[in-house]
Amino acid sequence: MRTYFDCIPCFIRQALDAVMFVTLNENICESVIKEVLDVMSRMDLKKSPPVMGQYIHRMVRKFSGSLDPYKTVKDRFNKYALQLYPALNEIIEKSSNKLDTATRLAIAGNVIDFGANNDVDQAVVDKTIALSLSSHIIGNMEHFLKALDSAENILYIGDNAGEIVFDKLLIEQLPADKITFAVRGKPVINDATLDDAVATGITELVEVIDNGSDAPGTVLEECSEKFRRFFKDADLIIAKGQGNFETLSGVDKNIFYLLKVKCPVIARHIGCDIGEFIVNN
Amino acid sequence: MRTYFDCIPCFIRQALDAVMFVTLNENICESVIKEVLDVMSRMDLKKSPPVMGQYIHRMVRKFSGSLDPYKTVKDRFNKYALQLYPALNEIIEKSSNKLDTATRLAIAGNVIDFGANNDVDQAVVDKTIALSLSSHIIGNMEHFLKALDSAENILYIGDNAGEIVFDKLLIEQLPADKITFAVRGKPVINDATLDDAVATGITELVEVIDNGSDAPGTVLEECSEKFRRFFKDADLIIAKGQGNFETLSGVDKNIFYLLKVKCPVIARHIGCDIGEFIVNN
Repeated sequence: MRTYFDCIPCFIRQALDAVMFVTLNENICESVIKEVLDVMSRMDLKKSPPVMGQYIHRMVRKFSGSLDPYKTVKDRFNKYALQLYPALNEIIEKSSNKLDTATRLAIAGNVIDFGANNDVDQAVVDKTIALSLSSHIIGNMEHFLKALDSAENILYIGDNAGEIVFDKLLIEQLPADKITFAVRGKPVINDATLDDAVATGITELVEVIDNGSDAPGTVLEECSEKFRRFFKDADLIIAKGQGNFETLSGVDKNIFYLLKVKCPVIARHIGCDIGEFIVNN
Repeated sequence: MRTYFDCIPCFIRQALDAVMFVTLNENICESVIKEVLDVMSRMDLKKSPPVMGQYIHRMVRKFSGSLDPYKTVKDRFNKYALQLYPALNEIIEKSSNKLDTATRLAIAGNVIDFGANNDVDQAVVDKTIALSLSSHIIGNMEHFLKALDSAENILYIGDNAGEIVFDKLLIEQLPADKITFAVRGKPVINDATLDDAVATGITELVEVIDNGSDAPGTVLEECSEKFRRFFKDADLIIAKGQGNFETLSGVDKNIFYLLKVKCPVIARHIGCDIGEFIVNN
């Protein structure tokens, strides 16, 4: 997906939110914002929004001196989601269509996105879980469930820490030997990395690889060769969240996007409302 | 008033709104936005927001090739306000405190501000007029009315086209020989210029001068010598709207700001809510 004009003020808003999340030092904030403005004045709008997101968060890390500013947030939401895990698992086990219910919960987990909104809290997560179980899912859930059934080699690209516990619930409904789970190569916002996959026990379930990149999405040309091999060999790709949607939509593969829509540009691009739960192919 | 960090994404939003108001040509939009981003990457945050507004609208005019992109809007709102004029005048004449009522209406007219919001319509104007007559006015209205009574030399700095008809209603309640009315020196957004003062009959009431500048506010150091002389000599200055407030607050003169608050940064700076009607000294 290209960068729309409406993304531009939002990038600045995100950069401000991110740097002020990390530090209240006005000089650092001003330096980050001015660097971001300078790079944006030369940016290629044909590139996807996470390419600018990647740059913004590199600047936030560089100027704040923190290699992983969202570490506390990631740990907190991994822990909270693990607390919810037994109850969510019970909901799945008692439901009439376990795969449908687990998919709904995996999408609900996508609300834990500090790129789109840096004041996610437990109440928002609880509310989203309840909504996901009763809401109409936009897209083609039936098609997705059938595709899961016939796939032999699934690459499941995760998005955020905390959210990956919700992914774990879906993965547990599928044959472990057919699945590889992918995380980001380096910390960016609250996106899940290998540490989070270990902390939430996903590494004990399926093979986990990282993509070698610090973009908050999947910018294929800068992912590791290993990740690209897995991507190429998969006959079904599950891509979680807005960042993966923005970077992979248009790529010629059998990709299902599972996400909660959190921005007006993506809502318009997909043709739905903000807040909707999406299974998009 | 300085430029706050929160102004920065809003500048980009305003630049986008302004250029897309003038043209739908994507190349022109991209050129304006990138120029604005480049200049903003080097801006001095100690300067007031209208200094950046001035630059943004210069770029919009330069790249779109239109010297006065808001001409139609200005004419439309002058005409609409002149249609309302007899009824508004009757409200003032029948009220128990004519000066208070005329001041409320002058503030209501400040809603016709295409810098803050480019979809102002007649319904919004009608609603604001009704609200202004019944709402609590933040600040010190009594102090203002007393100051009007004792002033000998009033400089009344207008803001937008259309709005100046509401200013005319207030001016008509005051001794004409004590008042000079000031407009912008050149077109910027829908700010009133000499043409609007002529079109709405203000030039027939009081002396009208222009400030020689194309900033959407009063950036004293770049106003004409003549304007600065009037400014210096006045014993009471009435400054309408956000742009005049942002550029003049902090200046050591007896200035009363009459405005409707339309942005969160100004609301926070003043300590009130968005939408409030203000008489600030």
